[in-house]
Amino acid sequence: MPRNVLISGGCGFVGSHLVDRLLRRDDLQKLVVVDNLWTGSRDNIAHVADPRLSLRIADAESFAADERFDEILHLASPASPVWYMREPARTIRANIGGALNLLSLLRPGGRFCFASTSEVYGDPMVSPQPESYRGAVDCTGPRSSYDESKRCTEALLFEEQRVSGLDVRVVRLFNTYGPRTRIDDGRAVSNFVSQALTTGVLTVYGDGSQSRSWGYVDDIVDGLERFFWRDGIEHKGPLNLGNNREISVVDIAKFVCSLVPGSRIEHYPPVPQDPTNRCPDLTLAKRLLPGWEATTGYEEGILRTFEWFRRQIAGGGKSAATS
Amino acid sequence: MPRNVLISGGCGFVGSHLVDRLLRRDDLQKLVVVDNLWTGSRDNIAHVADPRLSLRIADAESFAADERFDEILHLASPASPVWYMREPARTIRANIGGALNLLSLLRPGGRFCFASTSEVYGDPMVSPQPESYRGAVDCTGPRSSYDESKRCTEALLFEEQRVSGLDVRVVRLFNTYGPRTRIDDGRAVSNFVSQALTTGVLTVYGDGSQSRSWGYVDDIVDGLERFFWRDGIEHKGPLNLGNNREISVVDIAKFVCSLVPGSRIEHYPPVPQDPTNRCPDLTLAKRLLPGWEATTGYEEGILRTFEWFRRQIAGGGKSAATS
Repeated sequence: MPRNVLISGGCGFVGSHLVDRLLRRDDLQKLVVVDNLWTGSRDNIAHVADPRLSLRIADAESFAADERFDEILHLASPASPVWYMREPARTIRANIGGALNLLSLLRPGGRFCFASTSEVYGDPMVSPQPESYRGAVDCTGPRSSYDESKRCTEALLFEEQRVSGLDVRVVRLFNTYGPRTRIDDGRAVSNFVSQALTTGVLTVYGDGSQSRSWGYVDDIVDGLERFFWRDGIEHKGPLNLGNNREISVVDIAKFVCSLVPGSRIEHYPPVPQDPTNRCPDLTLAKRLLPGWEATTGYEEGILRTFEWFRRQIAGGGKSAATS
Repeated sequence: MPRNVLISGGCGFVGSHLVDRLLRRDDLQKLVVVDNLWTGSRDNIAHVADPRLSLRIADAESFAADERFDEILHLASPASPVWYMREPARTIRANIGGALNLLSLLRPGGRFCFASTSEVYGDPMVSPQPESYRGAVDCTGPRSSYDESKRCTEALLFEEQRVSGLDVRVVRLFNTYGPRTRIDDGRAVSNFVSQALTTGVLTVYGDGSQSRSWGYVDDIVDGLERFFWRDGIEHKGPLNLGNNREISVVDIAKFVCSLVPGSRIEHYPPVPQDPTNRCPDLTLAKRLLPGWEATTGYEEGILRTFEWFRRQIAGGGKSAATS
């Protein structure tokens, strides 16, 4: 059956990769990308010539349409602390206001997919984190606009599932990196790579011993695709997606340094409330998505990202469409 | 200096008691009550003849005004699980949408006060709960619309404090009971009292061993008054307010039974995710609000509540104005 699909944040890093995947679907009749280009970029979908795609420059929380959609994928939100800490109210509006508004555009019986985050676990006291872990988020802290608006949007969706039977798919994305990250994104991999390619000085906050699971975007989007558009998944709760190989921030920096002779690391004071560790428990993902695995090691993923950034910087930002 | 004040939820249980206190202020020039009468009632402020007061029947999230206010007190939200579990999206809109909208009505340099809740602690793993405890809320659970929208509204306000220096006062209210609770409110004290006065059968969910700290409304509103309208409080974070005498639900039921000969307790299956305990750490409240204490014991508080409910039921709901 032909499907009309809306994706908010479709010009963003993860969103634009998902657009590419959506356009491979035979049952896709129409794809509306809603994006206000706050952190997303037209360049990320500039390579698409598919007539089914249309871009609407609008906030997710106020986008209006006469039509109703069979599937809505809500990804509109900054994801980097540098960006969301600067405009917390706008971050909250994008996530919760966005979900409330977009729900009104879903046809009855339609499916609502949401990109949540491992940040719902805060600075976790258990590792790896299973979906059942309730988290340790400081709801008054400097990262709370993002963490709490993701948590509250999850609440909204699972409550709508409970009271009205909404078909909900919520993924909790762990750290994701790769081509189409903004050069000024501000998170570790993109910072290190762009610093290595420009100043040669990589800034590590704190001693760099804080660990993350680094998921290469192709692997992560592959998981999203399997979870978001497969019918007949019985699971009703959220799903972790990420790479569960835990690597420290400083080890990532060292690897990037090894790609550019003469580059070096400088340490800066730690960022407030930076989580000390983050690692997905993927038991559920492996059961629900047979065959899926984040197979790209950080060395290979960073090499690919490095090449993309190198072309971006050389080309003045015009090569986004080629990756 | 004369102050223009807005209170959302001013027809509600706690809100209407706060209206009475606000009207005692000499510096109050104008008091606008915004209430959509979802769980509030006009009866709760019907006794007020003060010309400074005006009632606007409107949702907090969409109320519009040309004027700006010196102080805004945001209390618009259902507080009983029976009510918020029925309309989760509306609960989220009232809290976060309400805060976002009302912030736009605050004059620059004005003060924004918010009634948060002990529910931000979820089913706590530490007791008593200090303000620094990050909580154990299931953000996908059946109480999450309330818990998470309170948490996210706190996040919004403390983030605005961080980025724009907003004067914020957030209280976390523990269980509060007393006159002007709805007869169909659905929480323990009001349930027990109205059941004792009507059917004579008090319903206790589970074995009743779950404990709460029961705060009589006069004590709690006294704390709100001291915190919300005193200038020069240096504390920048949230503040617990409640009674820290922890009593089990079944003990409350037994006490109410003792007031009506022939009444009895019946046990029903436990409510999903009903917290097992809840007790405020009041160290900070005692330091910030010298002389404040929740002095009303549950026996005295319940007797007063019982008398009020008795008159309500006898008068067909018309005696609200007298308490």
